[in-house]
Amino acid sequence: MRKTLQTFLESPAFGNFILGIIIFNAALLGLETSEQVVAFTGPVIGMLDELCLAIFVIELLLKLFAYRFRFFSDGWNVFDFVIVAISLVPATQGLSALRALRILRVLRLVSTAPRLRRVVEGFITALPGMASVFTLMALIFYIGAVIATKLFGAAFPEWFGTLGRSGYSLFQIMTLESWSMGIVRPVMKAYPYAWSFFIPFIMVTTFAVVNLLVGLIVNSMQDAHSEESNAETDAYRDDMSARLKAIEERLDALIERQGRQ
Amino acid sequence: MRKTLQTFLESPAFGNFILGIIIFNAALLGLETSEQVVAFTGPVIGMLDELCLAIFVIELLLKLFAYRFRFFSDGWNVFDFVIVAISLVPATQGLSALRALRILRVLRLVSTAPRLRRVVEGFITALPGMASVFTLMALIFYIGAVIATKLFGAAFPEWFGTLGRSGYSLFQIMTLESWSMGIVRPVMKAYPYAWSFFIPFIMVTTFAVVNLLVGLIVNSMQDAHSEESNAETDAYRDDMSARLKAIEERLDALIERQGRQ
Amino acid sequence: MRKTLQTFLESPAFGNFILGIIIFNAALLGLETSEQVVAFTGPVIGMLDELCLAIFVIELLLKLFAYRFRFFSDGWNVFDFVIVAISLVPATQGLSALRALRILRVLRLVSTAPRLRRVVEGFITALPGMASVFTLMALIFYIGAVIATKLFGAAFPEWFGTLGRSGYSLFQIMTLESWSMGIVRPVMKAYPYAWSFFIPFIMVTTFAVVNLLVGLIVNSMQDAHSEESNAETDAYRDDMSARLKAIEERLDALIERQGRQ
Amino acid sequence: MRKTLQTFLESPAFGNFILGIIIFNAALLGLETSEQVVAFTGPVIGMLDELCLAIFVIELLLKLFAYRFRFFSDGWNVFDFVIVAISLVPATQGLSALRALRILRVLRLVSTAPRLRRVVEGFITALPGMASVFTLMALIFYIGAVIATKLFGAAFPEWFGTLGRSGYSLFQIMTLESWSMGIVRPVMKAYPYAWSFFIPFIMVTTFAVVNLLVGLIVNSMQDAHSEESNAETDAYRDDMSARLKAIEERLDALIERQGRQ
Repeated sequence: MRKTLQTFLESPAFGNFILGIIIFNAALLGLETSEQVVAFTGPVIGMLDELCLAIFVIELLLKLFAYRFRFFSDGWNVFDFVIVAISLVPATQGLSALRALRILRVLRLVSTAPRLRRVVEGFITALPGMASVFTLMALIFYIGAVIATKLFGAAFPEWFGTLGRSGYSLFQIMTLESWSMGIVRPVMKAYPYAWSFFIPFIMVTTFAVVNLLVGLIVNSMQDAHSEESNAETDAYRDDMSARLKAIEERLDALIERQGRQ
Repeated sequence: MRKTLQTFLESPAFGNFILGIIIFNAALLGLETSEQVVAFTGPVIGMLDELCLAIFVIELLLKLFAYRFRFFSDGWNVFDFVIVAISLVPATQGLSALRALRILRVLRLVSTAPRLRRVVEGFITALPGMASVFTLMALIFYIGAVIATKLFGAAFPEWFGTLGRSGYSLFQIMTLESWSMGIVRPVMKAYPYAWSFFIPFIMVTTFAVVNLLVGLIVNSMQDAHSEESNAETDAYRDDMSARLKAIEERLDALIERQGRQ
Repeated sequence: MRKTLQTFLESPAFGNFILGIIIFNAALLGLETSEQVVAFTGPVIGMLDELCLAIFVIELLLKLFAYRFRFFSDGWNVFDFVIVAISLVPATQGLSALRALRILRVLRLVSTAPRLRRVVEGFITALPGMASVFTLMALIFYIGAVIATKLFGAAFPEWFGTLGRSGYSLFQIMTLESWSMGIVRPVMKAYPYAWSFFIPFIMVTTFAVVNLLVGLIVNSMQDAHSEESNAETDAYRDDMSARLKAIEERLDALIERQGRQ
Repeated sequence: MRKTLQTFLESPAFGNFILGIIIFNAALLGLETSEQVVAFTGPVIGMLDELCLAIFVIELLLKLFAYRFRFFSDGWNVFDFVIVAISLVPATQGLSALRALRILRVLRLVSTAPRLRRVVEGFITALPGMASVFTLMALIFYIGAVIATKLFGAAFPEWFGTLGRSGYSLFQIMTLESWSMGIVRPVMKAYPYAWSFFIPFIMVTTFAVVNLLVGLIVNSMQDAHSEESNAETDAYRDDMSARLKAIEERLDALIERQGRQ
């Protein structure tokens, strides 16, 4: 019976049904943001949303029953599970932000559509290779935040009052948003040499970010490209080696025969 | 007769004539934006513009007559047709914006100049390979807009009041324009944890956009590059294989003869 | 005598002397921007600057005498000639901006230092391959400027009043500087659908610019890289072909001899 | 005894101990930025910080004793030495900024963790290849600063009053931060043709920066990639050459024997 259930759960029809429910649910949650629509439809949207959620819960329970603990061995199943679980936490506990997170259910589109899955998987597998650049970035931000807090925290508490505020302001500066007119020029009114901290910071972080982004992308593309072209090259090289071996064997045969004559 | 017309329509002289009319028309539409020029020339510019339009209409009618339904099988012809059709819609219907769109006729330069055509075609053929990244982007924007509308819509109706406004504001934030000083710092005055929504949003969308742009470009360049270099490599490999085969055959002949001796 | 002069002009000593004068002149023109230094040194800086200019003029006259019309066959000589000529135009004609352009003489460093020359030459030779993308960009800007002037010129004369102003504003929008908070949000107060013009404009121009920049760079690097690696591959392939030919010839000899036996 | 000391200093246990001290010290310096924590803990943090410093000083003295002058032959040792030395300069001399620089000790993480070391080393070895682009950038900035100071210094002393201020403003403009709404539009009120200086400046520097960044990255990645793939290719080619040579030798032997028969 578990076997039959697995066949049913893996059938394209069931997959498309769930895909349809996800898209329908996404549209519902979008409509819910409009006060006019909510006023016009009354509780219908909320009820349909609960229905969608119920379908997701049943789907997960069926999968849990069909695959048991193997269910959690696939990262995407864990992903689906967490997203549905978030929606089940009662929002009455003052965590009204959790209600807004229900829209994350739309992310189930990614786990359902194989092409989107592959994009996200490709990105995730590329991350470990970038771990050292990430660590460097974290180090630079930590050092920058400590220095900025110590030097400018007293005079500009809103921007550099605490480590957290400095970190946020440095992130803003790294994105180059209003870094000069908004932050550094005012700071330079009080500390004329502030540029000697901010300009190197901008240079180093900009370079590191470009490094990270371009590195991740070009690396993964080169891998994809060279794997494909290497397959062809390897086939050719194997063919060449086999042929040369055949020639050598025939020559050996010739030499042997000639020796016998 | 249709054959003669086709030869005429495809002749370089006719192509250059149309190219000249497009450029002349572009200059006219540029001059028309200057009130002084319009005051000085009176209705002349408008009349010349009508003349250009008349030439375009005649050209299209001739092409339609010469190629009949095959005319619409080429995407660039459909492009020309739509652009000229826009100019023919009467602007009296309050759709004064349509008058401004007459300048789109200048885009016919692209369909007329083969080099520009190739750039646009190269871009369009690269798009399907990026469809999944586009879908992911749309998903992220939809989810972001729903969350932002629910969380910040009540307090900041101008920025996040509706799904559309949230989408526009998130696009602005993705381009990093005034995201912090203009939007997120004011929002953080009301919701201190707003950064935990906006900073991940910026990171994810920036990465996705860079991914899209660099991906499209490097991919198409690598294809062009490797195709060329592969042609040479394939020729070399075919040559090597043919030669080794010839050597094998001669060795077989040698062995056979030796056997007969 | 012209021969001797050419040897002298091409000697490293003379090259280094001119390089020294260029750097000394650059420092002078930098010092001249400081009012204190000018007040302290009086007319000395101006006189030294005239001296440097005199040396450059003599150098060019010598070169003109030594190489005659061949002098102008090298683009870098023309470059030097124009830069020195700009400094000789009398600034009394109200063209005080020309005085500021004297600093362009520092650019002679580029024509004197071979490594810098190569960077600039590499860039210039890559430009023609990008001509069609440039043309497309110019087209998009012209169309955008005409549309913006017609639609928004009346209500926002400072930003979109003339084709020139629209072009400048669109350039600013393309660089994403204050595009939303500074320009598009105010425009949307008057024309709520203005985003449907500006957002596609941003998308298309951003893509085209990234295309241009990355294209230029990666293309030239790939060329440099593949040329080098191709040289090695070609050498290997030639070696392989020559060896196979040698084997074939020996086999032919064997077969022939065997036939004679 | 010096030998034993070296073995001890190079043991993983000692390395991990120093790593732990670095991380502990980083946390201390972070906590020190919070006034509440400082008020609560009193002088404890300062004392622990002194202890960490003492450990670093002892570590360096031991290394100096163990390796003598060879200590300074490794760039990373010099790096550690300078960073610790900065902390030892008494801060009582009004150089309170030096106290903030103590956090730079966290950078010792880079010299201690081999993976981070390699990222930084890779970056540093790539720099020389970019020296000419750097020189060009410096030249462009110097020329731009001189021109801007001469043309706009009198009217806008805060932005372009001195070479230094012009340099800072041009850096801001290069990062595209508020370049138009903040700087160039106000300047154009006084000098309507100011755009003809700033827009080419933006184009040239943007291109040069992208060139620098992408060049550095893609270059180093291509090197890494092609080195790896070349090793395989070289092995294959050597194998092919050796095999063909063996075939030739056998053929020579055959021909020789046949001649003797």
